[in-house]
Amino acid sequence: MADARRYFDLPSPFRMKRGGELHGARLAYETWGELNEARDNAVLILTGLSPSAHAASNRDDPSAGWWEGIVGPGKAIDTDRFHVICVNSLGSCKGSTGPASIDPATGEPYRLDFPELALEDVGNAAYELARGLGIERLACLVGCSMGGMSALGYMLHHPGSVRAHISISTAPLAQPFAIAIRSLQREAIRLDPNWNEGRYDDAHYPETGMHIARKLGVITYRSAIEWSGRFGRIRLEPDKREEEPFGAEFQIESYLEGHARRFARSFDPNCYLYLSRASDWFDVTEYGNGSIAAGLRRIRIERALVIGVETDILFPLQQQEQIARELQAAGADVDFVALDSPQGHDAFLVDIERFGAAIGAFMAKL
Amino acid sequence: MADARRYFDLPSPFRMKRGGELHGARLAYETWGELNEARDNAVLILTGLSPSAHAASNRDDPSAGWWEGIVGPGKAIDTDRFHVICVNSLGSCKGSTGPASIDPATGEPYRLDFPELALEDVGNAAYELARGLGIERLACLVGCSMGGMSALGYMLHHPGSVRAHISISTAPLAQPFAIAIRSLQREAIRLDPNWNEGRYDDAHYPETGMHIARKLGVITYRSAIEWSGRFGRIRLEPDKREEEPFGAEFQIESYLEGHARRFARSFDPNCYLYLSRASDWFDVTEYGNGSIAAGLRRIRIERALVIGVETDILFPLQQQEQIARELQAAGADVDFVALDSPQGHDAFLVDIERFGAAIGAFMAKL
Repeated sequence: MADARRYFDLPSPFRMKRGGELHGARLAYETWGELNEARDNAVLILTGLSPSAHAASNRDDPSAGWWEGIVGPGKAIDTDRFHVICVNSLGSCKGSTGPASIDPATGEPYRLDFPELALEDVGNAAYELARGLGIERLACLVGCSMGGMSALGYMLHHPGSVRAHISISTAPLAQPFAIAIRSLQREAIRLDPNWNEGRYDDAHYPETGMHIARKLGVITYRSAIEWSGRFGRIRLEPDKREEEPFGAEFQIESYLEGHARRFARSFDPNCYLYLSRASDWFDVTEYGNGSIAAGLRRIRIERALVIGVETDILFPLQQQEQIARELQAAGADVDFVALDSPQGHDAFLVDIERFGAAIGAFMAKL
Repeated sequence: MADARRYFDLPSPFRMKRGGELHGARLAYETWGELNEARDNAVLILTGLSPSAHAASNRDDPSAGWWEGIVGPGKAIDTDRFHVICVNSLGSCKGSTGPASIDPATGEPYRLDFPELALEDVGNAAYELARGLGIERLACLVGCSMGGMSALGYMLHHPGSVRAHISISTAPLAQPFAIAIRSLQREAIRLDPNWNEGRYDDAHYPETGMHIARKLGVITYRSAIEWSGRFGRIRLEPDKREEEPFGAEFQIESYLEGHARRFARSFDPNCYLYLSRASDWFDVTEYGNGSIAAGLRRIRIERALVIGVETDILFPLQQQEQIARELQAAGADVDFVALDSPQGHDAFLVDIERFGAAIGAFMAKL
């Protein structure tokens, strides 16, 4: 199978924000376009919870990436102009070191012995990668969803290392509604007897828990408006309905089932738990004496584009407005764009027309 | 324990909308205030999915009811003026016949042998109760949440039997977002090995599934805005945090846990599944050749009050607007009230000030 991943060895030990350290940890990343001689055209992308570093097709892996419509030659993030890097988050399972990786101290997977993970660790690891690639200052740091929080952590810990920032559908801190959803997703996994406090294997895998967690994710990543238009009350053909009692009968139910099936075995449950909890913990007020404004004002960048979506129930528009307002107050030149995409939190992945236009217009000014 | 329930024997057999029939079925109900000589001051309340018939305290059961702030002497639904009846839905487990009841044909609980339940059956059974109490025409039929759909079914099947109607936070049909939430709640129960296709007992009870279902319910019954103000990021005292990995750390998590614990053993899982699926099935377009407008226009009442809440994500305000518009088009004199209660779908249970004012003003005109 084609694989465009490269690997970067993190400094060892790599110290974690909440204590503990990693030895021999690495990050998987992919790149597009060329780094110029001044090394000032680098764009770094930090992802949401589950995507890999494969944001777009490239020479070594021609399969479509998760942001294929946005990243490429002549696209909104133009790989003819920029050297684009996408990194698999520290703590994930798509090539970077995480709970599913082998602990060099024991020769066994870390599982729950992986140290507590914060999104600042994800940001710090990505910063080390940029430094390791010889990039002193990013032209632009892009963060989507969870990656937006990782990006805030990156910029708070490394002032002056980023010129422009694109913040998409994220949060300056986790609000209780988002915590409640994520807590319930984690609980569904934890209550699955096959989770077994993290000691599952392929034969005894917390598939049920992962199914429920993913379905709950998809429900909150989209919007009621989109689904009313798309699925309404359309029923499955009788031969496609589930035979068992209370089985799927409506199209919306089989749509969720398809998502759950594709995800359950493709993402490591322990990694999911770690990244999910890291999202709950993120809070810029830690950097501002309890104030979001004071926390965000510590970020030193020249320009920012902040995009939010009106139908996003997980990272509501008000949180994007807050980020935009305080980055502006910190001295950045901020473009704030509120999109009326019907697709909710996931709009950045699917409403390429609206997102491409907003991102492209901003990138053209850099 | 005090108990104010009375029981009404339904006609036997009682035929169900989707086929099948019940023998020897009954409804539990409670009453407040006196029926006048003309028998024209009766108010019938149809409940949401889980409440019992105990809407308010009364002589035989002085404990507070689930709508204590609304129903009583001098209150919005004034029991000095009206004879108020609240019925436990057919298919529930609070005294009325449902899947947890004994099937007279076998002497064993029905479990999944209970016939398929529609909300029209809930409405039809309540209609039989009103008739049985000697009431030809209700002064007012009140339906909250699921009960609002049951009430629409009642009025569609028995034109002329209701003078005024109060519709609260309900829907003319189930939209895919609500179906998705309910489907996932059902799946959490069905995937619990202790559910065992409905054949659980107290020792082997689908507690995990009920926990997850209830938490998901509470998440969608409330609103992100309310929780941000109420819980923010407040953490539990260290001695109240859960010891196990990824255990509760934030107040919002223990709030959900408390709700789940109180609910899991107090509502029968099979009854939950039946009523939940009945909610997905409800669709007034069946009565209007595929049109919501045509369906609702078949309802013949004199007056209606339709109340919706702006923060309700499960039964969004647009659905209340639709009900109000079409009842008006059908010739009723309709008051439509959109409340900005922060408590979401559950506001009718807790925002007694706003709901009491709206309901009281309407009832005063009857």
